[in-house]
Amino acid sequence: MALRNVTGAKCTLCGKVSPATPETTTCPHCGGILDIEYDYDYIRAGVAKTPLSQRRDPTMWRYMEFLPVEGVGDRPRLRVGGSPLYRADALGKALGVRTLWIKDDGQNPTASLKDRASAMAVVKAQEAGKAVIACSSTGNAASSLAGNAAAAGLSTFIFVPSRAPKGKVAQLMMFGATVILVEGSYEDTFRVSAQAIDRWGWYNRNAAINPYLMEGKKTVSLEIAEQLGFNMPDWVAVSVGDGCTIGGVWKGFRDLYSAGLIDRLPRIISVQASGCCPINTAAAAGTMEWVPQAEDTLADSIAVGVPRNPVKALNAIRESNGVVVNVSDEEILAAMRLLGATSGVFAEPAGATGTAGVKKALELGLIERDASVVSIVTGNGLKDVNNAIRAAGEPMRIPPDMDALLEAFAAGGVNLR
Amino acid sequence: MALRNVTGAKCTLCGKVSPATPETTTCPHCGGILDIEYDYDYIRAGVAKTPLSQRRDPTMWRYMEFLPVEGVGDRPRLRVGGSPLYRADALGKALGVRTLWIKDDGQNPTASLKDRASAMAVVKAQEAGKAVIACSSTGNAASSLAGNAAAAGLSTFIFVPSRAPKGKVAQLMMFGATVILVEGSYEDTFRVSAQAIDRWGWYNRNAAINPYLMEGKKTVSLEIAEQLGFNMPDWVAVSVGDGCTIGGVWKGFRDLYSAGLIDRLPRIISVQASGCCPINTAAAAGTMEWVPQAEDTLADSIAVGVPRNPVKALNAIRESNGVVVNVSDEEILAAMRLLGATSGVFAEPAGATGTAGVKKALELGLIERDASVVSIVTGNGLKDVNNAIRAAGEPMRIPPDMDALLEAFAAGGVNLR
Repeated sequence: MALRNVTGAKCTLCGKVSPATPETTTCPHCGGILDIEYDYDYIRAGVAKTPLSQRRDPTMWRYMEFLPVEGVGDRPRLRVGGSPLYRADALGKALGVRTLWIKDDGQNPTASLKDRASAMAVVKAQEAGKAVIACSSTGNAASSLAGNAAAAGLSTFIFVPSRAPKGKVAQLMMFGATVILVEGSYEDTFRVSAQAIDRWGWYNRNAAINPYLMEGKKTVSLEIAEQLGFNMPDWVAVSVGDGCTIGGVWKGFRDLYSAGLIDRLPRIISVQASGCCPINTAAAAGTMEWVPQAEDTLADSIAVGVPRNPVKALNAIRESNGVVVNVSDEEILAAMRLLGATSGVFAEPAGATGTAGVKKALELGLIERDASVVSIVTGNGLKDVNNAIRAAGEPMRIPPDMDALLEAFAAGGVNLR
Repeated sequence: MALRNVTGAKCTLCGKVSPATPETTTCPHCGGILDIEYDYDYIRAGVAKTPLSQRRDPTMWRYMEFLPVEGVGDRPRLRVGGSPLYRADALGKALGVRTLWIKDDGQNPTASLKDRASAMAVVKAQEAGKAVIACSSTGNAASSLAGNAAAAGLSTFIFVPSRAPKGKVAQLMMFGATVILVEGSYEDTFRVSAQAIDRWGWYNRNAAINPYLMEGKKTVSLEIAEQLGFNMPDWVAVSVGDGCTIGGVWKGFRDLYSAGLIDRLPRIISVQASGCCPINTAAAAGTMEWVPQAEDTLADSIAVGVPRNPVKALNAIRESNGVVVNVSDEEILAAMRLLGATSGVFAEPAGATGTAGVKKALELGLIERDASVVSIVTGNGLKDVNNAIRAAGEPMRIPPDMDALLEAFAAGGVNLR
């Protein structure tokens, strides 16, 4: 069944176009990562016929013409997308930028932007007639897959290295996933999972292999645009790990532009941790030849020394005339505190990294102080309480009486009338 | 400034009606808890003039006629409310009930239903001209207050017993709250906080003292009704601790009925933990004379041996012709697993308690198997990962090879073609 809005899947390496079927993974010619291509006249006509402002569906599926699916019907699923975009004047003032918005994608069902990709994986698995989806990960990809699949009645097999934190394994188990702890490295784990996927024909949720996942992720940009009345900001900041999210963010803006819904494209601020920044390093050198790096950052969701989607990430930075910024772990923790205290947004370290990058880019003069900026928070801080404790600092502590309270306030610099 | 939709604040004990000002707390005559009363003709006219289906605001503030505020303007605030109502056929089948919906209120900004009350507290503090809000708690009330106040630019002082879990303190600190650890019991902590509130004139966020908080909580029922097209279910299940939430849930349905938006009221299933069920015990005995109990349950958010709002809770059960069910900790953990595996909803223990109660009520024959039921999930499981680990069970563990995987599948009863 050919999709009316999709024209094919173009390889990011060799440029050849293949048909886009539900089972499509990497390029059949060279193994490169594919990019789904659309008929933008079709999209334009669809949006003209039923304006977005008239649509009742608040989820990512409201942008149906932009998505590589025939429809989603009324099958059970989690409410993914429709996350809030907050005007963040207090935070903007603290950072020294005129106009700042926070897109809080930690407000998704399993508390990260990855829900957008996993919701897409579930629908494509259903189209492919698969009842089982598999992946190897302990991070947000795995938990979002387990949650979204459970809601849809699909089974999941999730392979994790045995060193995985118990809390993350528990979350997977709670969603009814079959979790297999593999006693070995991540490479060992991936290998066993690949053999099992091959043997039993499970649907493969791997963002760098499966081109549809990025089509889910791009909905964050469609929402940002709609929430801003299609008046685009100058800059959009996002944290970068394996490159799939920044690729999706850029794809969303490109699609909007191609369909004529926006008349200018924002520039991307690609933010990585100083301790693990292979994509930014390559982008800064103006080369596509990235070099693997150690994974030395507490922001685990973007600690990716060997990125799986460098081509799309580097293209996003280059095509958008973007900038790259690396931030230290201390700067990430400081951004977590700032987001919480000024905006009531609790981010995991990778979720606050984009905002840390906005601060750094302003300090470095990479972006203008009178610019307008959207910073995407990619995951919720409840996912990583240990680092929140590290960021938070110590509270004051008193015996139970008012004199002690007064002393503590005086010592802590709390001034009250 | 008198509110046009509010007629007064009626005491739940002595029945006297007082004016409802932003500063209103308990009854000036007898100290009893107050209940905000409305002009239902005014509400009916407002909803007739601007039908809910035409309103763009997806948050709790879309029900403005039902709320004791003049308006909320465009002041910064978190997106509270608008949480998903999932049709949960798979879970309903597992529990043995014909029609089941899950209202996932863990999908609020700080991940619990309490955000509805705290968002209201923030608006009322602003109306009262207060820049500081205080409370004594470590639970969802405190974190939701800290987050909602931070977004609005208000300061918070939060008093917690020094035994409070470090993770919960960290969450408060991240939202920029001034957190005071008091070396003493909860009673000591409460006493110091009361003295400080009195001394500095801070706004008091205490659900049993401040009658407006329940008016925020009731919006969960307004949403359930609207999401069901105002076709009410037979039953609504909710977990019960201090009694404020069940009181708010019932108030919402009563208001809808009084305003003529629904033509029948659901019956309430009041679910408490067997190890701490003073309200259900009194309700079962048909008395308002509850007796304090020990707090012996892992569901910390409802471990309240001395409930602060028993009158409204007991009224909700009695007036709705409701039923009471107590569930063990094992039944709560089992409900957590069921919610996750069948619906992709990750609940904290108190969040799954309502669902555990639905199962138990069916088993006891208290509700009919062909009934329609809404179960409210009051908080997200990421708030309490330790109990998720306890609920989740152990994953399978293998050396990195396929033979080991096949053996583990065989041993674990995983049957694959």
